[in-house]
Amino acid sequence: MNLKQIGEFGLINRIAKDIKTDKSIIVGVGDDAAVLEYSRKEYLLLTCDMLVEDVHFLRKANPADIGWKAVCCSVSDIAAMGGEPKWLVVSIGLPKNLTVKYIDGIYSGIKKAASKFNVNIVGGDTVSAAKLTIDVAMIGIVRKQDIKLRSGARLGDAIFVTGALGNAVKSGRHLRFIPRLKEAEILVNNFKVHSMMDISDGLSGDLRHILEMSKVGAIIYEKYLPKAKGATTESALAEGEDFELLFTASKKEARRIIENFQRMSNTKATCIGEIIKPGFGLIMIDKNKRPVQIKPKGYDHFA
Amino acid sequence: MNLKQIGEFGLINRIAKDIKTDKSIIVGVGDDAAVLEYSRKEYLLLTCDMLVEDVHFLRKANPADIGWKAVCCSVSDIAAMGGEPKWLVVSIGLPKNLTVKYIDGIYSGIKKAASKFNVNIVGGDTVSAAKLTIDVAMIGIVRKQDIKLRSGARLGDAIFVTGALGNAVKSGRHLRFIPRLKEAEILVNNFKVHSMMDISDGLSGDLRHILEMSKVGAIIYEKYLPKAKGATTESALAEGEDFELLFTASKKEARRIIENFQRMSNTKATCIGEIIKPGFGLIMIDKNKRPVQIKPKGYDHFA
Repeated sequence: MNLKQIGEFGLINRIAKDIKTDKSIIVGVGDDAAVLEYSRKEYLLLTCDMLVEDVHFLRKANPADIGWKAVCCSVSDIAAMGGEPKWLVVSIGLPKNLTVKYIDGIYSGIKKAASKFNVNIVGGDTVSAAKLTIDVAMIGIVRKQDIKLRSGARLGDAIFVTGALGNAVKSGRHLRFIPRLKEAEILVNNFKVHSMMDISDGLSGDLRHILEMSKVGAIIYEKYLPKAKGATTESALAEGEDFELLFTASKKEARRIIENFQRMSNTKATCIGEIIKPGFGLIMIDKNKRPVQIKPKGYDHFA
Repeated sequence: MNLKQIGEFGLINRIAKDIKTDKSIIVGVGDDAAVLEYSRKEYLLLTCDMLVEDVHFLRKANPADIGWKAVCCSVSDIAAMGGEPKWLVVSIGLPKNLTVKYIDGIYSGIKKAASKFNVNIVGGDTVSAAKLTIDVAMIGIVRKQDIKLRSGARLGDAIFVTGALGNAVKSGRHLRFIPRLKEAEILVNNFKVHSMMDISDGLSGDLRHILEMSKVGAIIYEKYLPKAKGATTESALAEGEDFELLFTASKKEARRIIENFQRMSNTKATCIGEIIKPGFGLIMIDKNKRPVQIKPKGYDHFA
């Protein structure tokens, strides 16, 4: 068996299999961040994101953008759980032929993002590597009543996404995105959100995670998909690197979100469909009003 | 300026420069792990360690050993702070030509180490990469009164190392070492240790960190250096990858440690010298009883 046959999520399932965890783990492998016991009123959140040259970015990219993205991927994970980022450590693998100026560029991007989202840089590891590699591990904190999981979607929920999807790589947005920390905070503080995650691997693949974890199905409408400039439906569904929020809320709450969220956040939240019974999987009503079964296909590193 | 000119520690200083941190950080960049506010009686510890193929190990190594080491480097860091490891996340960059069997081997080593040292695997990231890359970020917990820092060495302290040093790479010990968690626990619970760290980059370079952080000097004796089988003095001083504990305690306490520690732990702790006034740097009395100024030279990834 090779990697292509089992794919990225097969791999994740393989590492998650048979691991023993103790009572301190509220949610382990399988959400945007792990949820861990902390204090009477709060949980710790823990997440990590690895970026590799020639896979996630090219050497010719602006090094400050690479550093920015390395931090913002994890900020996005913490935000999607309803939490606030607090501390980070960063491991960096540096090719020996990088200039100090380039490295300073990466560091400036890391520090800029950490400062912008109030995360403390508290340590790291620096090693040599053939390809520039950055892995950020981040701890966040969330009030227990605010925690948002992938498993919380309920039958009849409206499905929302923030911002616009698709064309993130070609447009360069994948390196310079603003993680939806503020938007998540507004959602958590003002609306009853049932489930939430960030879209990193593409809407269709990521929505599939919510469906699996919540044991439900979904119907979405092509005509409602908020597409970024230059994005096709295919790109909006499956390209990934959007780092928008994907969330569900009851229909009653959906009305309040549609009426109030954009005014409060300056960011659009678009209702793209609804949660239906399991067994239907993920169905899209296309422009011709025909139902299409959407294969659960987001970005897979090993496909 | 290139990487070779500024070196690994120049790089670390560059990222540590001008970072803003808030009151929740007790110790940030510069010790084995960051020390963070947690509860009334405890601190959180946070560390990360990145291993890269062809830098830290070869593909032909036993994959279970690679996974074992990835976890144990961080366990060693947490132990050296006087703490207990609690949760980890692991980012893995996998070349597409790895077999699933090889990857399962890595995972089995990760799980074995996590199980052995009671660390919960709570998440991770899996991406494709040209070279196999594993980065473990680990959270530990330490009682406030037990915390051991690099900055605690005092004038007149005896300097100790556990186990034996040198020849770690050639002997394969660098992949299969047992982090000194039990030994650190025994030290913390039974003796007054002033400063502690683990030896990952080589005794001379790592002792130098204690000297700099504690603003002191040190004299060590070649004849007392506990050398591993096949190790030269040079290798014991500078090769690195030993993952032994380096610690200091008052002379009075040193006597108690010498008399009791080995019986309690089954591990040797050898007194190799003493802490002297700053300004002397690091001096070694060689076999011919001549003082030699030891340059602060452990393993440098970019030298």
